Amino acid sequence: MHKPKVDVNRVFQALGDPTRRTIVEKLSQRPHSVSGLAAPLGITLTAVTQHLQVLEESGLVRTVKTGRVRTCSLDTPGLSALEHWIRDRRSTWERRLDRLGDFLAESGGDA
Amino acid sequence: MHKPKVDVNRVFQALGDPTRRTIVEKLSQRPHSVSGLAAPLGITLTAVTQHLQVLEESGLVRTVKTGRVRTCSLDTPGLSALEHWIRDRRSTWERRLDRLGDFLAESGGDA
Repeated sequence: MHKPKVDVNRVFQALGDPTRRTIVEKLSQRPHSVSGLAAPLGITLTAVTQHLQVLEESGLVRTVKTGRVRTCSLDTPGLSALEHWIRDRRSTWERRLDRLGDFLAESGGDA
Repeated sequence: MHKPKVDVNRVFQALGDPTRRTIVEKLSQRPHSVSGLAAPLGITLTAVTQHLQVLEESGLVRTVKTGRVRTCSLDTPGLSALEHWIRDRRSTWERRLDRLGDFLAESGGDA
């Protein structure tokens, strides 16, 4: 139950690849089997399995094996890590713009 | 004034690189000159300029040249494109989970 903390660097690396982004987009619609992912992407089962492993390790996808079928679905820790990273960048930046605004107001805009 | 729409694929590709993520993190603290970015990263001016070009093209960074100094700062269209992409994935997925919940409730959880 204790999932390791997701490394946002891994998430960015995972989603830097267009095939992996397409997999995440497909899985946000509904879960897919590995072969169901591979066929429309026109890639081999081996290739899709490698991409899935990267996505699993970055907390974006989870897979469950039932009998002989492995079903893949979207997982949320990866998306959450990404959201936090963006929010941190934005908030630091916006705080800075606020301070700059205060400074310009105090100095009459001539600074 | 009419900025071209940011392509989220470009944003992911830009941020898939750890050096470019570090540049964005630094710029969210405060604007930097090109040489001010290059020195702590231990990379050449040419290398940092190439990274900045990728970041500018994906709406994450903007640069302003004043005299001989080029100042780089964070730009928001790239971060916004990224946020939208994540929100779209999440909302599609959460709607699906809601429908699944309804289905399981209706079928008494035996499905």
